[in-house]
Amino acid sequence: MPPVHPADVDAAAARIAGHVHRTPVLTSASLDAACGAEVFLKCENLQRVGAFKIRGATNAVLSLDDATAAGGVAAHSSGNHGQALALAARERGVPAHVVMPSTAPAVKRAAVAGYGATIVDCGPSLAARQAAVAEVLTATGATEIHPYDDDRVIAGQGTACLELLQEVEDLDVVVAPVGGGGLISGTALAVAGHSPSTVVVGAEPAGADDAHRSLTSGTLVPCTSPETIADGLRASLSDRTFAVIRASVTEIVTVEESAIISAMRFMWERTKLVVEPSAAVAVGALLGGGVPGGRVGVILSGGNADIDHLPWVQGER
Amino acid sequence: MPPVHPADVDAAAARIAGHVHRTPVLTSASLDAACGAEVFLKCENLQRVGAFKIRGATNAVLSLDDATAAGGVAAHSSGNHGQALALAARERGVPAHVVMPSTAPAVKRAAVAGYGATIVDCGPSLAARQAAVAEVLTATGATEIHPYDDDRVIAGQGTACLELLQEVEDLDVVVAPVGGGGLISGTALAVAGHSPSTVVVGAEPAGADDAHRSLTSGTLVPCTSPETIADGLRASLSDRTFAVIRASVTEIVTVEESAIISAMRFMWERTKLVVEPSAAVAVGALLGGGVPGGRVGVILSGGNADIDHLPWVQGER
Repeated sequence: MPPVHPADVDAAAARIAGHVHRTPVLTSASLDAACGAEVFLKCENLQRVGAFKIRGATNAVLSLDDATAAGGVAAHSSGNHGQALALAARERGVPAHVVMPSTAPAVKRAAVAGYGATIVDCGPSLAARQAAVAEVLTATGATEIHPYDDDRVIAGQGTACLELLQEVEDLDVVVAPVGGGGLISGTALAVAGHSPSTVVVGAEPAGADDAHRSLTSGTLVPCTSPETIADGLRASLSDRTFAVIRASVTEIVTVEESAIISAMRFMWERTKLVVEPSAAVAVGALLGGGVPGGRVGVILSGGNADIDHLPWVQGER
Repeated sequence: MPPVHPADVDAAAARIAGHVHRTPVLTSASLDAACGAEVFLKCENLQRVGAFKIRGATNAVLSLDDATAAGGVAAHSSGNHGQALALAARERGVPAHVVMPSTAPAVKRAAVAGYGATIVDCGPSLAARQAAVAEVLTATGATEIHPYDDDRVIAGQGTACLELLQEVEDLDVVVAPVGGGGLISGTALAVAGHSPSTVVVGAEPAGADDAHRSLTSGTLVPCTSPETIADGLRASLSDRTFAVIRASVTEIVTVEESAIISAMRFMWERTKLVVEPSAAVAVGALLGGGVPGGRVGVILSGGNADIDHLPWVQGER
C-alpha cells in the first residue's frame, strides 16, 4: 500500500489554491488528427515558474508547521524544482536555500535568485550536491524538500491531473512524463481518486528508461547514465514513487530522442505552445502510437525550453 | 459615419459561433511586471489556422446568400487570410480560389491546399495578383473576399475583442496591431458597442507606419515600401478602415524592428506562447511604454511564425 493516498491530492488542491495557476486545458485539431485521438492538453507550461513543480513545492512548504517553516527549506536542483521551491518559500515568507552546481546556466541561477532564494554552490556530482544540502541543513536548521521523494510533493503534483479530471470527463487515458516519478505518481493518485477507470500511462525517454525497466522487471532499476535532451527526466525513481507506479500505472512508453524533438517541434509549430523537451516526451508517446486512443489527457509538464538553441535547427546543438 | 457598425460585430459573433474557437484569455505575471500594467492576452495565436483571420473570413463566407456562395470565393493572399478563406469555404462546402505568388513558401501553399482550396499562381507584384483575381472571378463566378476592405470581414475580426470584453471587465485600453486595418477597425467597433470608455490603441511597425502617418496627418498615406519582419502588417489602410480608425482609434504607436523582435522573444520565453512578429508588435508597444497603463487587453493576432528561423538567433536571419 503506497504511503500517499488519493485524498492527499484533494487536500493539496485545497492547500495550494490561490498560490498556483489553474492552468487552461487546450485542444488542437492538428494534434488530434496527427495521433488519431481526442487530446486534452493540461498546460502546465503556462504554470508559475513555467512548470508543474510549483504545485508540489507549494504543497510541501505550506504543509510545514510554523516553527519548522521558519527554519527555511532547502533542496539541490539545477532545474525547475529549485525555482519552484524558491517561489513557494517566498510566498510563505521563509528562507530557501537552493544548492546548484557551479556549472548551472546563469539564466537558471538568476531565476532562483530572482525569487529571493540563497544559492549555495557545489560541485557537479550527485555526492557533492547531497553533501552541500546536508551542510545547509546543519548550518541553518532548514528542512529539505526533495523534488519527488516526498509524499507532500507527490500529492501536490497530482493536482494538475485533478484539475484536468474536473474539467474533462470520461478520459480513457492520462499520459504524463516520468523522471523521478513525482508527477506520474501524483497523477495516478488523482486518477485513482476521481476517475478510476482511466488508464495511466507514463512516457519516458528511451535514453533514460529506468522506470520502464523497473516496471517491466518488478525491481527498481536506477538511472545510471541518462542520455536525453529531456533534462527534467534524467532522475531515478525512488522506492516511494516506484511503489505508487507499480500499484497504479499501466505502462511506461519509451520515446526515442528523434521522436522527442519531432514532438516538441510539432507542439511549437502547430499548437503554438512552447513546451520543454520533457513535456514533449508525453506528446511523442502519443504521436508514436504507443498510447491507447480515445479521449486522452496529457500533462504538458513545463515550458522552460532554451529558445536560443532549438534542437530541430541544424547546427544549433 | 463608418459604414460598419458595432451591432455588426455582435451579429458576426452569433454567425461564426461554432466555426471558430473561443480562444482563451491568458495572463502573465512576468509580462505585467515588465510593462507595469495588468495585461490580458486574447490568444488568437491559438485560433484555428493560427490567427484571427478565420473570424473575418468565416463571417464573410457565411454572410453570402446560397446562390452567391455556391459560386465560390476568391482572394489573393500569401498569408493567413488565404488559409482562413480556404477553411471558411470548406466549412460551408463551397469552392475557394486563392491567388498566390509563385514565390510563396511551400509550407504556406501546402496549408492552403490542405484546406481544399484551388491555388492560382501569379507573379509577385500587386498588379499581377489583382489581375489574377479578376481572371478567377470572370472564369468561375466566384465572389472576392478582400482580407480587410470588407465590412463583413471587419465585423468578424471584431469578435476577438468582443469575447475579450465579455470575459474581462473594465479594461482601460485595448491594443491591436495594424496592417490593412481590419483587426483594429473591428476591435474599435467592439469597444464602441460594449465598453465605450476603453481607449483603443493601434500598434504598427516603424518600418510600415502608414496608419500612424495617416492618423496624424488626417489623410490616407499608402504604405509604399514596408520594411519589417511583421509580414502581416505590410498592407496599406483602405478608405473603409481609415474611416473607422479616424472615428475610434486614439493613437497608433510605432515599434522599431529591434523592439518587435525583443517582444517576440519575451513572449516565447516568458509566457510560453508562440506568437508571430505581427502579434509581437502589439506587445512591443506595451513593453516600450507607449501605451497607457492600467488594465490592458492585447489582441495577440496570430502564431504563424517560422520556427526554423528565429530572428533573435545570431545568423538565423
